[in-house]
Amino acid sequence: MLPVEEARARILAALSPTGAETVALPEAWNRVLAAPVAARLTQPPAALSAMDGYALRAGDGAAGATLRVVGSAPAGHPFAGRVGPGEAVRIFTGAVLPEGADAILLQEDAEAGDGVVTLREAVRPGRWIRPEGLDFRAGDILLHPGRRLTARDIGLAAAANHPWLSVHRAPRIAILATGDEIVLPGEALPRGGIVSSNAHALAALVRAYGGQPVLLPIAADRVESIAASAGAARGCDLLVTTGGASVGEHDLVQKALAPLGLAVDFWKIAMRPGKPLIWGRLGETPLLGLPGNPVSALTCAVLFLGPAMARLGGLPDAAPPFRRAVTAAALPQNDAREDYLRAFVTRGEAGQLMVTAAQRQDSSMLRVLAGAEALLRRAPHAPALPQGETVEILLLSELGL
Amino acid sequence: MLPVEEARARILAALSPTGAETVALPEAWNRVLAAPVAARLTQPPAALSAMDGYALRAGDGAAGATLRVVGSAPAGHPFAGRVGPGEAVRIFTGAVLPEGADAILLQEDAEAGDGVVTLREAVRPGRWIRPEGLDFRAGDILLHPGRRLTARDIGLAAAANHPWLSVHRAPRIAILATGDEIVLPGEALPRGGIVSSNAHALAALVRAYGGQPVLLPIAADRVESIAASAGAARGCDLLVTTGGASVGEHDLVQKALAPLGLAVDFWKIAMRPGKPLIWGRLGETPLLGLPGNPVSALTCAVLFLGPAMARLGGLPDAAPPFRRAVTAAALPQNDAREDYLRAFVTRGEAGQLMVTAAQRQDSSMLRVLAGAEALLRRAPHAPALPQGETVEILLLSELGL
Repeated sequence: MLPVEEARARILAALSPTGAETVALPEAWNRVLAAPVAARLTQPPAALSAMDGYALRAGDGAAGATLRVVGSAPAGHPFAGRVGPGEAVRIFTGAVLPEGADAILLQEDAEAGDGVVTLREAVRPGRWIRPEGLDFRAGDILLHPGRRLTARDIGLAAAANHPWLSVHRAPRIAILATGDEIVLPGEALPRGGIVSSNAHALAALVRAYGGQPVLLPIAADRVESIAASAGAARGCDLLVTTGGASVGEHDLVQKALAPLGLAVDFWKIAMRPGKPLIWGRLGETPLLGLPGNPVSALTCAVLFLGPAMARLGGLPDAAPPFRRAVTAAALPQNDAREDYLRAFVTRGEAGQLMVTAAQRQDSSMLRVLAGAEALLRRAPHAPALPQGETVEILLLSELGL
Repeated sequence: MLPVEEARARILAALSPTGAETVALPEAWNRVLAAPVAARLTQPPAALSAMDGYALRAGDGAAGATLRVVGSAPAGHPFAGRVGPGEAVRIFTGAVLPEGADAILLQEDAEAGDGVVTLREAVRPGRWIRPEGLDFRAGDILLHPGRRLTARDIGLAAAANHPWLSVHRAPRIAILATGDEIVLPGEALPRGGIVSSNAHALAALVRAYGGQPVLLPIAADRVESIAASAGAARGCDLLVTTGGASVGEHDLVQKALAPLGLAVDFWKIAMRPGKPLIWGRLGETPLLGLPGNPVSALTCAVLFLGPAMARLGGLPDAAPPFRRAVTAAALPQNDAREDYLRAFVTRGEAGQLMVTAAQRQDSSMLRVLAGAEALLRRAPHAPALPQGETVEILLLSELGL
């Protein structure tokens, strides 16, 4: 059985990022940048006042001096002339500093008279002036490809005068649930039937990872049914199946897809929950076969589908975001399979993460997973650990799960 | 000037959650639940096998015993009869345990013969059987109102047989940028002009918080222009303005909106960046006036708009998610205004957050904010701190910023 790390490496090696598409700036939020964003202007474009007050020559700026007010410079309306000796210009936050001026008298330190202003405090040259290019200069690369664009980034791209951005096309992920026992929510439920939950959780997860889910019709446990549904995945960037990944008589995914050209890379990994995991390619389409138990399916999705989507989506770092945490309760020793325990998290005095494994770890218990806050990684053959030891966890809130 | 906490409390006290709307299950991801989700069925609906193997009576389960195989129970196709003494039924993962059986023989511990099976290992009663209702029982409340639905929650609601969910309507947030110097990205830029960035960053932030942004036309620094644009916010859940929140001659928001019935609650808070902040009501519409500097606008958005949207969106906890962190570098003492420093974060040995303030803190420097990872809170009059002390931070990645 393949170790988890190696399985992930083989998945990532087989995938490459989607191409670029051009989107309007507001649509670029939370998308992955595909081309550098260079500043199209210098910001600020000229020296600006950072406050409301008066622009003057620092040499005229002694306390008690009285200057002649020769004009006004609101933001967006630069003063056309030049500030000469003994002169001042009324100025407002964000306005261009007039030529000749190199100091700002704050409004609250000024006594305005009839066409004149008197300084209550001395000015300091350069104070309250934002020099040209303080934030960035034309040509500076402000945002690099591979970045998932935040609200700040959208603001920065706007400030740099970009109404359009080039981003990676959102990966299209086909999702195929298999099983005679599976019906859609709200449909008639026969005896022994189970409502499909994996496909819907996975579709939501695909959205959380920035992809477009394509929910294929549920396939019955018959070769023809699986083959027909899987065929509809053509043109998608990845086909994810759930259920049918093991080797029982009724685990038919491999059998059904072999005639369609399924090339299996591996189909078993040394982890729990989730030993049966298929990775391969169905014609042009990469195929990830997740187990059927809900907790196994979602844990495997976090460890393999998430990274696969990161790679497809153009993110440079596809590894799951493991965090260090401290055990708040003892842990038993682990066997040969890498284990991911559902766990709860609190925060210690200095903000460190404190983790406790849930009592019940059955891989069918979706409710336990829904109530959990983390997956606690136990390496193969990890020894028993007392309270207070450092372990690795995945915070579910950081996984989009 | 109002303390930050009190300003936030007054904002929250004036807002109430949006009403509910019914959405199809896949659309409910990342929405806030408005009504409890009760299980419509028991899961599993009957005792199920957790493995592939044979169902039998525990009393027949000694190692070496040979049993007659009387039928088969794939998932979704329950065995119609009853397992009698000396009998076994071939069973598969997820299949209903046949009547009479109370033990599972694993496939790998079974030697199949012609119509018979021989046990290589003894069975344990109940082992590999998932009892009826292990995950949940019909009527159990699985998800409570006020929860932002995760991918796991969508799976759980599906498993509980809900094709529709009741969620809070996404808050509609009108965004109004004001200023003669402001133009849209890509439009002709006059001398002294600045490309609008706040409105676009705020619109992205509104999306990150699960709202619908409504970008109003940019208003010039004239009373009529501001009044006309603001009028278009009718029907929105909140009007956010940026710029024009101070008291300079060209800060016209208050002046322009007073004749339209603006009732101001407060307009100055004791914080940096972002002293000028308006909170009030324009007719039926709550109004939040943010400062014009990009960093001030976004910091105030995190501290006030985020909580306001949480309240509008139906989340029970609207406070910003402050985390404890340890100073990785010394900090100077603070003055009377609560300060939010742009900062960088690393993680220590035990996963604790280590924080360093950025060198440059000018509130016009959007690029510094875009590159930062946290806002470091300094309380009013906080003393100088050496390295290694505990402080409070907001992680930008947790804020949707």
